[in-house]
Amino acid sequence: MNNPPPSAAVLVIGNEILSGRTRDANVQTIGAALAEIGIRLREVRVVEDRQDAIVDAVNALRARYDHVFTSGGIGPTHDDITTDCIAAAFAREVRHDAEAVRRLTAYYGEREATEVRLRMARVPLGATLIDNPVSAAPGFTLENVHVLPGVPRILAAMLPNVIATLPGGPPIVSRTVTAWIRESDIANELAAVQADYPALDLGSYPFMREGRFGTSLVVRGGDEPAVTAAAAAVAAFLAARGAEFEPPLA
Amino acid sequence: MNNPPPSAAVLVIGNEILSGRTRDANVQTIGAALAEIGIRLREVRVVEDRQDAIVDAVNALRARYDHVFTSGGIGPTHDDITTDCIAAAFAREVRHDAEAVRRLTAYYGEREATEVRLRMARVPLGATLIDNPVSAAPGFTLENVHVLPGVPRILAAMLPNVIATLPGGPPIVSRTVTAWIRESDIANELAAVQADYPALDLGSYPFMREGRFGTSLVVRGGDEPAVTAAAAAVAAFLAARGAEFEPPLA
Repeated sequence: MNNPPPSAAVLVIGNEILSGRTRDANVQTIGAALAEIGIRLREVRVVEDRQDAIVDAVNALRARYDHVFTSGGIGPTHDDITTDCIAAAFAREVRHDAEAVRRLTAYYGEREATEVRLRMARVPLGATLIDNPVSAAPGFTLENVHVLPGVPRILAAMLPNVIATLPGGPPIVSRTVTAWIRESDIANELAAVQADYPALDLGSYPFMREGRFGTSLVVRGGDEPAVTAAAAAVAAFLAARGAEFEPPLA
Repeated sequence: MNNPPPSAAVLVIGNEILSGRTRDANVQTIGAALAEIGIRLREVRVVEDRQDAIVDAVNALRARYDHVFTSGGIGPTHDDITTDCIAAAFAREVRHDAEAVRRLTAYYGEREATEVRLRMARVPLGATLIDNPVSAAPGFTLENVHVLPGVPRILAAMLPNVIATLPGGPPIVSRTVTAWIRESDIANELAAVQADYPALDLGSYPFMREGRFGTSLVVRGGDEPAVTAAAAAVAAFLAARGAEFEPPLA
């Protein structure tokens, strides 16, 4: 019960996130899905579409975490360099995968399965395909690195196909208590609850809504009864204070 | 003209982003604001609220980039450890800043400026305050590291106060052409335009909308006439193809 949960990192390959053009959605999708199977997302990096940046990040993260998920850069255009970068990070060759070629040809038809489109069948030697139920072009897993596309809807459809292959653990659960009180008014009580439950994470997130200050108090961990008890302790001190709050929600 | 623009990184300190509970908004705010003053956001990291993770990331990023912006962890509760981590990264002491104490006392009133709240006046020695027009608690700049809160609305209000202090450059501009065509149909033409404008970034971002596939083609760089010309070249090959597209937009 006290073993730390398996760890993961996400590497987002995307100039469009860094430029501010697009707000990333994939980190949230992956973080939530991993929590459900008891894997803890511990780090995210977003890097430019540059070989040195991608290779360095892949090698740093795959050494440090049990799993690495990448997002972006596996399409057919000149800026899609992720596959070659993963291969470089592992010092593997890239080749057209026969099964991936078959899937792309079935999807586009013989005539439209052009050389450019079949670039999406290139994977590093030794990789396992990740099924893409939306647009055929597969992702792949190489050792502990899982390579997914950047389009959020396609990533979300493919993610269950890789997650199903990972050893599971007890889910990481959370309870949120939303209180209409400033966090500085309850800092000492919060610290006391955290001290009572050192194996859990007790987070305090201030917000402003409709011109009022409030705080979301989030208890998180792998031991569900303890999470429930800690959230009840938070609710109890809020009630003792006479604070307005919404009861713990999963 | 050909000097690379100043570089920046963002470090998001936030278990709530990693757990999937919250979708980050601050990276987009910072990336877009930096582009306007000609600073290029080149890397983002999101780490847990743990001292070793934060200190390591701060030291890695401040050595590598001209500017580092941090988001999160400067409130008054037990999980707000960013200030102490920045101080540890620079081997500086932390003390209550007299001006920050004055601002917090003026904001909360003498009676309500509790010891817990005045924790938000603690900054590393030698730091310069960043004004917070929303809720008084300041951020701070220490050398090339700019420390901001995690609440998106407050961060957005404070960001101009630090950006105004940075040496400016020509803005990084972009033009987007949205085309109702699959990127695999235009990969070769795109690569040719990229080759004609090697100093610019030409990104290709597929999307699905209303059941149709399309591609956003984004040209980006510091040389506005070149960006405009490259976007026109993209529009020209789309027109020659008979593809449906929306003309270049800033």
